[in-house]
Amino acid sequence: MSDGAQDRLDAHCMSRALELARQGLYSTHPNPRVGCVIVRDGQIVGEGWHVRAGEPHAEVHALRQAGERARGATAYVTLEPCSHHGLTPPCAEALVQAGVARVVAAMQDPNPQVAGRGLLRLAAAGIAVHSGVLEGEARALNPGFIKRMEQGLPFVRVKLAMSLDGRTAMASGESQWITGPAARAAVQRLRARSSVVLSGADTVLADAARLTVRAEELGLNAEQTALAMSRAPLRVLVDGRLRVPLEAPFYQAGAALVAACTAAGRERFRAAGHELLALPGSSGQVDLHRLLVELAARGANEVLVEAGPRLAGAFAALGLVDEYQLFVAAKFLGSSARPLLELPLTRMAEAPALKIVEMRAVGDDWRIIAVPTAAS
Amino acid sequence: MSDGAQDRLDAHCMSRALELARQGLYSTHPNPRVGCVIVRDGQIVGEGWHVRAGEPHAEVHALRQAGERARGATAYVTLEPCSHHGLTPPCAEALVQAGVARVVAAMQDPNPQVAGRGLLRLAAAGIAVHSGVLEGEARALNPGFIKRMEQGLPFVRVKLAMSLDGRTAMASGESQWITGPAARAAVQRLRARSSVVLSGADTVLADAARLTVRAEELGLNAEQTALAMSRAPLRVLVDGRLRVPLEAPFYQAGAALVAACTAAGRERFRAAGHELLALPGSSGQVDLHRLLVELAARGANEVLVEAGPRLAGAFAALGLVDEYQLFVAAKFLGSSARPLLELPLTRMAEAPALKIVEMRAVGDDWRIIAVPTAAS
Repeated sequence: MSDGAQDRLDAHCMSRALELARQGLYSTHPNPRVGCVIVRDGQIVGEGWHVRAGEPHAEVHALRQAGERARGATAYVTLEPCSHHGLTPPCAEALVQAGVARVVAAMQDPNPQVAGRGLLRLAAAGIAVHSGVLEGEARALNPGFIKRMEQGLPFVRVKLAMSLDGRTAMASGESQWITGPAARAAVQRLRARSSVVLSGADTVLADAARLTVRAEELGLNAEQTALAMSRAPLRVLVDGRLRVPLEAPFYQAGAALVAACTAAGRERFRAAGHELLALPGSSGQVDLHRLLVELAARGANEVLVEAGPRLAGAFAALGLVDEYQLFVAAKFLGSSARPLLELPLTRMAEAPALKIVEMRAVGDDWRIIAVPTAAS
Repeated sequence: MSDGAQDRLDAHCMSRALELARQGLYSTHPNPRVGCVIVRDGQIVGEGWHVRAGEPHAEVHALRQAGERARGATAYVTLEPCSHHGLTPPCAEALVQAGVARVVAAMQDPNPQVAGRGLLRLAAAGIAVHSGVLEGEARALNPGFIKRMEQGLPFVRVKLAMSLDGRTAMASGESQWITGPAARAAVQRLRARSSVVLSGADTVLADAARLTVRAEELGLNAEQTALAMSRAPLRVLVDGRLRVPLEAPFYQAGAALVAACTAAGRERFRAAGHELLALPGSSGQVDLHRLLVELAARGANEVLVEAGPRLAGAFAALGLVDEYQLFVAAKFLGSSARPLLELPLTRMAEAPALKIVEMRAVGDDWRIIAVPTAAS
């Protein structure tokens, strides 16, 4: 086969492996989403994707399906096969045992401690290895896992709902949900794919918010819905002064983690099935950076911040945000209405620069996805 | 020919006529943009579009090109041919004289006084007539001309530049242009297609704005640039208390119309080559509705409002806006920054409802086009 033809075949097969990996969007965390395709003589003989932590990796599913046909075949994996014993045996070993002739990975393991080891193990066994096919797509699939491995921090996505003139509620606080059902379903799916859904006392008190994933609002098929519900995100409340009572719908909806400035009350929360983390910051508020480090240490890949202008503004001001998803309702709330973010800037030069990566209609509303461009 | 085949041919030919009409986007006002195609035996034998008021209509250009081949042909026109003597002889007459067998119009004349007369004149001469082919597209091409004919008001387009959080400038007034060159070129083209570019004293004083069309920034080819520059929009300043001095760049850049609450100073403005209109409103401000009626009476089809939050907000509050074009820069200016529109609302129910009809990247910025949906 010519190099060009081989490249095209590799990209085609990796594209299929990525499609398989996406099936795990709502259920693999804290693990990454991974897909695998085994190809022999131009035919797919095995396919697999990782479903849930503790269950077999994508390669194992694909090798099982391929059986004897894996011998001499090429395995396409969206992430470098692991070389260490975790909850399951190392996949590099399984690929060697199955006798595959070539392994193509979309990207190396993002954990700097083990990056390249799986591929080295394979090469040492005489298997041809190649990495970097559709790497961009593969990285986009696991922003949280990658950031956690590389930086010890989760990927922070801030969701905001606003009017076309950038307002979130009337000055009076009147703030019925301003966007429609399609936008609400999109937000439900954002929650479901996240390891953590994080909010603040203002929002939880004002809206009696529970921040749960609701199966009937996801708009997914039965299988994906079941997967999403089997692995619900941890609900985290930032409530420095413990203003939200244990009787609030938020706490009644299930076990939660509350980040406060004090440890007083820890027993009371524990007795009610919740966990209280004392993370006092310098300014009398919860130390958000330490909170993120703690969440990453617990395996949180993607954190969805659904908070009011103050808490969302604090994340923005600290440069802790990786992505904004703005749901825009086609109305003007006017100049007395509440701002999108509490972010008091005085000079243009302080304005955080972003890149808008997508604007798309979601039902009657629109979604804007923007990412910070500076080092902020 | 079957009815279906005839319909497809009609749509195809009308589509070409619309394409021709669009060549006049920057130059026909106060006239409408009109295109014409003459087709005989499935072949285009003549094409034309209206270039400038006082010059021949689209039909005349197309008939000239077709010559003798117009006899027995079908003429496609994007607007019902005129039946009255204006600056040029009636086109209906010209079509009869040329011996065309059939006339297809995209839409009737929007002027209720003459609608249908042109087609009747043709039918009376034994010509087959048909109207309503691609009517939506034809109407979209002349929103200003149609609104002026139907309601005696121009089409009002409000252009605003804002940050992603809906802010236009810092609280200090610091307001360098926040969007990039592609957005600036788009705004130049909006000016060029308008009959009137309208601004307020705040903007003209703060930004030393001239609101002219600049050939080198249009981003059009030489022919379209020349056409645009040959028919520059009237610059209108709303300046109730005549705060902008005659020495300001705005007045130095050419003849302008200023709308004030008083007629005092009219002679001084006239001597400087400008016109002062006294349109005092009830609240001590310029009566914007009367101003629009006056502009329509002078033949203004499309009015581009490029103003600050106060004047733009006043147009919005009065329900005088037909379309918003929001140029969005990918940054946050923060919660102390100036609002998009001065529009003090207290209840959600007062929030003007819009429909977002387009969101599109323009260079590094994005453009959102939204239209009011209620009767507001």
